[in-house]
Amino acid sequence: MNRIKPIATELKKIDTLRQISSVLSWDQETMMPPNGIDARSNQLETLAGLIHDAWQSDDLTQAMANCIDLYTGAPKDDLDTDEKAFVREVYPQWKRNTQLSKSLVQELSKATSRAQHVWQDARKNNAFNEFSPHLQTLIDLTLEKINQLGMTDHPYDTLIDEFEPGMTVKKIDAIFSPLTEKTVDFLNHHKTLPPNSIPGPFGINEQILYSKELMEQLGYDRNRGRLDVSTHPFTIDIHPTDVRITTRANPDYLFESISSTIHEVGHGLYEQGLDPQWAGTPYGASRSMGVHESQSRLWEIFIGQSLAFWEGQLPRIHDLFPSAQSTTAADFYKACHHIKPHWCRVESDIVTYNLHIVIRYECEKALFSKSLNVNDLPEFWNQKMNEYLGLDITNDTQGCLQDVHWSAGLFGYFPSYTLGTLIANQLHQKLHAHFPALNDMIRTKTFVPIKEWLNQHIHVHGSKMTTSELLNSLGIHYAPENFIASLSEQLST
Amino acid sequence: MNRIKPIATELKKIDTLRQISSVLSWDQETMMPPNGIDARSNQLETLAGLIHDAWQSDDLTQAMANCIDLYTGAPKDDLDTDEKAFVREVYPQWKRNTQLSKSLVQELSKATSRAQHVWQDARKNNAFNEFSPHLQTLIDLTLEKINQLGMTDHPYDTLIDEFEPGMTVKKIDAIFSPLTEKTVDFLNHHKTLPPNSIPGPFGINEQILYSKELMEQLGYDRNRGRLDVSTHPFTIDIHPTDVRITTRANPDYLFESISSTIHEVGHGLYEQGLDPQWAGTPYGASRSMGVHESQSRLWEIFIGQSLAFWEGQLPRIHDLFPSAQSTTAADFYKACHHIKPHWCRVESDIVTYNLHIVIRYECEKALFSKSLNVNDLPEFWNQKMNEYLGLDITNDTQGCLQDVHWSAGLFGYFPSYTLGTLIANQLHQKLHAHFPALNDMIRTKTFVPIKEWLNQHIHVHGSKMTTSELLNSLGIHYAPENFIASLSEQLST
Repeated sequence: MNRIKPIATELKKIDTLRQISSVLSWDQETMMPPNGIDARSNQLETLAGLIHDAWQSDDLTQAMANCIDLYTGAPKDDLDTDEKAFVREVYPQWKRNTQLSKSLVQELSKATSRAQHVWQDARKNNAFNEFSPHLQTLIDLTLEKINQLGMTDHPYDTLIDEFEPGMTVKKIDAIFSPLTEKTVDFLNHHKTLPPNSIPGPFGINEQILYSKELMEQLGYDRNRGRLDVSTHPFTIDIHPTDVRITTRANPDYLFESISSTIHEVGHGLYEQGLDPQWAGTPYGASRSMGVHESQSRLWEIFIGQSLAFWEGQLPRIHDLFPSAQSTTAADFYKACHHIKPHWCRVESDIVTYNLHIVIRYECEKALFSKSLNVNDLPEFWNQKMNEYLGLDITNDTQGCLQDVHWSAGLFGYFPSYTLGTLIANQLHQKLHAHFPALNDMIRTKTFVPIKEWLNQHIHVHGSKMTTSELLNSLGIHYAPENFIASLSEQLST
Repeated sequence: MNRIKPIATELKKIDTLRQISSVLSWDQETMMPPNGIDARSNQLETLAGLIHDAWQSDDLTQAMANCIDLYTGAPKDDLDTDEKAFVREVYPQWKRNTQLSKSLVQELSKATSRAQHVWQDARKNNAFNEFSPHLQTLIDLTLEKINQLGMTDHPYDTLIDEFEPGMTVKKIDAIFSPLTEKTVDFLNHHKTLPPNSIPGPFGINEQILYSKELMEQLGYDRNRGRLDVSTHPFTIDIHPTDVRITTRANPDYLFESISSTIHEVGHGLYEQGLDPQWAGTPYGASRSMGVHESQSRLWEIFIGQSLAFWEGQLPRIHDLFPSAQSTTAADFYKACHHIKPHWCRVESDIVTYNLHIVIRYECEKALFSKSLNVNDLPEFWNQKMNEYLGLDITNDTQGCLQDVHWSAGLFGYFPSYTLGTLIANQLHQKLHAHFPALNDMIRTKTFVPIKEWLNQHIHVHGSKMTTSELLNSLGIHYAPENFIASLSEQLST
């Protein structure tokens, strides 16, 4: 460990600045008085500058140079396996933070800031042509970023790698193609299941109270975290000793707070399960966006929407929400198991959700290989929506303008949502094999052993293993066919 | 302004780091989950290091050197009045942040950290001898600090100057001597007035709700601030656009939340009234600790404890707190106008409070002129308590171990509490002269014109004027005799 220790020391300095930045971001979303925004932007910009400078430090470069070839990233032969894993993870981060020209970084920052403003109006006014020149600029700048970072096979691979290290277009195609085929086939052979509605209204304070009870049931350590309310629910990992989640509550739709809370608890448990001694370094870092999403989706969907879950929660729900007093666990189960193609990704059911992701993936892949022009994006989008979901999209507000991601310059991020869902499905089966009485455990709110199993088998490893190695160690694959098969089974019960 | 602009630019950079540090401190006291403390300490230490480095910047030194003689602080002749005021304020701050040896700063930091731990136990165990060696170390290091900063007349002057620029032992003696004499005389001629008690209990949620209503009544802009709960109430000035206050509520004692809230609102209104364009520079900085305290004490005592105030608030109090429904405004007035010597500073009445400050001032003055040994401190303290307040202190927990200040290395801070109270008394009379119907305004909750008067006459000036110049511009003095005279009048009504 002596060779990597100097790298860890520098990374921890950078991470302290990132932690500070996270506290400020959390505060901005949950606590900050509205007029504090300009001062806050200035504070965050200052921290971004300090983080940038810290990555350029000579001490870090020297420490890296002692362990790897700075041009290729190849580790020195005498490093042991763990040390090699450490530098394997640090190198691409270091490259992204040191190899891009200052002018490109500044241009990207300005362009995303402008694009986000324009996108908000364009979405409101169904005016793709207002947004398209900005999207073009972001794509051009991102292509230049790919160029500066160096590209292997497909330009889009460089983008995916930031969120899913080791993942490529080839590998994703091999997962998404059968998934798409099986899902479309499934939709063709199942009739639409409308959602069963639970009568409200549901008190906001009671929903937040219930969310806090749920997070404790699931094993969330409130000495190392908290729950608040924000417009968009999120998890923020300040440090494994301070992981905060947020939720939101809708007086007419109880699932909003319950599913948001459980989803974020899943993310938060991962962060709380990381090794605090190695915080800020690969040994203490979550594996990838996809593995992170597998944790939130496992708890949200495979545990939190099961019949056993509702059976266990029903008495407390009846207690807190008088309007729902005559509903059964089966009513709740039916209320969250519906299938209905919808133009909106975030309002989609578990079956059709992945098709939304596939469409975005196909758009990004085509845009970055230049086989699709930005101006043709709406047509491409709408044609895919029709082909996969049987929907006629008649305006771009309900089409390719719906997500914030592209205006924020986030390309290569979408696939992780589906990769995570596929892993979650496999983990759920793994849990069933390990805990034959899993449903009884869920029914009796015995969630802590599940959390501990995830701690031991996933969280504690940080990024020591690659994602493939981690999945292999668990004996699981993405297995898209299996996902559709388990859904079929679930929906027929 | 061209000569000072480069200084302002550097100061604003330093202030951004201070703002960030303030957000973190606020979060630590109000929101942070308990186990986050180690990561938070590390974050704050990193920021302290960055702030230290920012003060050493060559750009700042050069900008300062263009305006003043760096050895004496004398301004260049061609600066205009405002520019001279600007550098007059910056110079001592710059000196304190650049002229102390690194080893001294580190030793002071370590020593206070150790002393605070020891003090907590020593206070609990009534064991002054455990704390005294640490106090001795802090005094020795502080004397070395005085030495490095350069001293004019009395070594203690250097300490006072940090909180009350321009104030000296000579000047304070001239205020505190007559104040002490008149107060002791007052106590000898008035019998003890026991506090009138208001029947509880008082709901905690209702108290916090009422605190939020009060802060809005007093003109606090909640778009630029917020109120939360903490163990010890405080105001934190992140930026004039983000000034947060805290309060605390006691189910048995309604005044705790009301007076804490009004006190902190007074501080907060000052910070909200500063010029945001000059935030982080003398033009946008509060004048001194004493002037700050004058704002909190004016609102808390002279406005918030007046009969007119209780007359105006009574209906809402009856509404929120059923147990108090048969009390009158006069009951409330009597409940907060009591006189009873007490060993504890923070539980003292408005009359005897200043004697507690005078005793601490006399201790500090004697310790730093070396006319008092640390080991003789308890005897010195107890003798003064007997002489001024007629109390026999039989243990140091209720004596010289009661305050946190000395263990935190805060010497020279106490006098500001009384200086602020004296200014508040004068401001109250000024307000009466300006608003002949002041009591009617208070009764009808017409507080905003008062806030605006303070904005115009005090807040907006920042530190352009010295404290003497500011008080002169208002035509007021500390006037200790007048303070006792107005109290006599108030207590006899």
